[in-house]
Amino acid sequence: MIKFTVKARDEKTKARQGTLQLIHGSVETPAFMAVATLGTVKTFSADEVAALGGQILVANAYHLYLRPGTEVIEKAEGLTKFMGWNRPILTDSGGFQVHSMTGLRKVTDEGVTFQSHIDGSRHTFTAEKVVEIQQALDTDIWMVLDEPVAYPAERPTAVRSLERTTKWAKRSLEVNPASHRLFGIVQGATYDDLRERSAKEITALPFHGYAIGGLCLGEPSDLTYRIIENIEPYLPADKVRYVMGAGYPEDILQMVSRGIDLFDCVLPTRNGRTGAAFTRNTRNTHNGRINIRNAQYKNDMRPIEEGCSCLACQKYTRAFIRHLFMADEALGPRLLSIHNLHYYYTLMREIREAIADNRFAEYAESRLKELHP
Amino acid sequence: MIKFTVKARDEKTKARQGTLQLIHGSVETPAFMAVATLGTVKTFSADEVAALGGQILVANAYHLYLRPGTEVIEKAEGLTKFMGWNRPILTDSGGFQVHSMTGLRKVTDEGVTFQSHIDGSRHTFTAEKVVEIQQALDTDIWMVLDEPVAYPAERPTAVRSLERTTKWAKRSLEVNPASHRLFGIVQGATYDDLRERSAKEITALPFHGYAIGGLCLGEPSDLTYRIIENIEPYLPADKVRYVMGAGYPEDILQMVSRGIDLFDCVLPTRNGRTGAAFTRNTRNTHNGRINIRNAQYKNDMRPIEEGCSCLACQKYTRAFIRHLFMADEALGPRLLSIHNLHYYYTLMREIREAIADNRFAEYAESRLKELHP
Repeated sequence: MIKFTVKARDEKTKARQGTLQLIHGSVETPAFMAVATLGTVKTFSADEVAALGGQILVANAYHLYLRPGTEVIEKAEGLTKFMGWNRPILTDSGGFQVHSMTGLRKVTDEGVTFQSHIDGSRHTFTAEKVVEIQQALDTDIWMVLDEPVAYPAERPTAVRSLERTTKWAKRSLEVNPASHRLFGIVQGATYDDLRERSAKEITALPFHGYAIGGLCLGEPSDLTYRIIENIEPYLPADKVRYVMGAGYPEDILQMVSRGIDLFDCVLPTRNGRTGAAFTRNTRNTHNGRINIRNAQYKNDMRPIEEGCSCLACQKYTRAFIRHLFMADEALGPRLLSIHNLHYYYTLMREIREAIADNRFAEYAESRLKELHP
Repeated sequence: MIKFTVKARDEKTKARQGTLQLIHGSVETPAFMAVATLGTVKTFSADEVAALGGQILVANAYHLYLRPGTEVIEKAEGLTKFMGWNRPILTDSGGFQVHSMTGLRKVTDEGVTFQSHIDGSRHTFTAEKVVEIQQALDTDIWMVLDEPVAYPAERPTAVRSLERTTKWAKRSLEVNPASHRLFGIVQGATYDDLRERSAKEITALPFHGYAIGGLCLGEPSDLTYRIIENIEPYLPADKVRYVMGAGYPEDILQMVSRGIDLFDCVLPTRNGRTGAAFTRNTRNTHNGRINIRNAQYKNDMRPIEEGCSCLACQKYTRAFIRHLFMADEALGPRLLSIHNLHYYYTLMREIREAIADNRFAEYAESRLKELHP
């Protein structure tokens, strides 16, 4: 069961606010999906993510297939139970991971043969196989196997990727036609005509939602936004739209205004683990981030972000969190990950409220100015 | 303010149940003090330790003096505020750490000169200096600088250590006679007559509590228990007694029955981080521990300990926690640390209840049988 209902539209932009009903619960969109590649959002318990306001997570079929193995998760009666997260999960097929393994993999029209990054064992992912894996994981949304290409891509590579992605998309739908939970993926690299062709081909197929893949791979942001803008008219208005791997707070604002509903990114947790915190009240820093390891915070008894209501800011100072990082204490990465995920979830909540109130354009403008004063 | 009140005594053993009133709160004894060397119990937030039932922590003056530095913690208005732990803290002087630095340190009657393990800088700890550091940290209980010796120790080494420890104890009391919060430490290695002499010398001094140092350093358990048994009659009955660095669950049961009130050990958290869980319902394992990395748990959908009420056991399976460890996910060590600390705190609560009910001897016997069936 995948049902998407648009509840409000912003008049000055393409932004929409909706509800996505899934097997394990419903999700208010636009939504940020925290990344739980291996069945856990790094440093968090499932309850902690829920307490911060998380409604849906992204896990990775490739990683879970290799470890702990599909059969373990089947025995646990699905990934949501295995993880102790009784809410929706979207699984990425792992196509991106498999294709990133230069030298370790071989791609044909049939699928991808690769060696495990853990033990070197050989495996083949076909369009059908990744659907079967996700079916075994019993997740809410399954992504098709696609062929993303690195940026920049030559045109022939982009064409091949697009054509394979469409072929695989069709085969995916044949695995379990009556009860699939599949999203299709638009490819086409950075070629406007190829993106348009891919969007037409993929949206002609009966998926429950449509993703744009192959973005946020190092191309300039203006190009990313233009590609989305050009594809958007081809994406059915009554289906949910997902940009894979996006992004920074400004990317999310720009993409919501171009009609995107779902996002996922490792930024809040990866930044948190390395000592970078997103804040709304520090100026002249890239995306408002501060690096807590900086010596200037040694004696700083203020919270990470003044006015923030997250646990890290309510209970701890910059000086203490810096000390935790310098001393390599696990609580440091935990606290910054809590803060950063709270920052992202707060951004998404404010975005949804702004759309519902038909003032999203003003909200986005003000937040973008804050990020680039 | 350090005030100890014995509330109940077990008739068949030396076990006592009491309340220790300190600056930042009170502690029910016998108590296990979780170790927060650098200002955090590894993997935990302060609130999480409190939620598990923790009433007092042990931090380390040597480590905190080097990093983040005493002045940072003074600026934060003391260690309890800096850590976000608004309850009692006992600070170890760091004497043990300093004396363990073979090759990096020089000990004279004046004190210990050593090189920082972080940046190689030179420092001197005197009896007076470690009191001043702990005063700056504003902790509830301060430990004197002592000279522990490695096991086994030659008699002349043990005599020198004992004599220095007594000299330093006297000097410590002169730093802040009116308002000190000091505990003395009995040394004497494994020589009964030296332990007796040290106990007499140290308990003749006006400390608020008495610790037994230089134990749990690899000597046989029977010897540890015998030393405590021999010293016990010299320890004032109205002052709290602390065995530093103890221990395994069986050590705690054996020492409580010999009249000890306070314990501290890295075991529950260090074991938790490496994958070992203390349980009450696994047989034929050392101290009831299981190693969650073991392949036998791959498909095991039971909790770590059946019947346990901790978060890890209520929400997660052995299979999931094993997966977290195999995948090097931070949640794995967190969950086992939560379980192990819950195990220790539950043991201490049951010990206190048993003493209050005058059935401690029976309780201890039954628990020791459980540990060595």
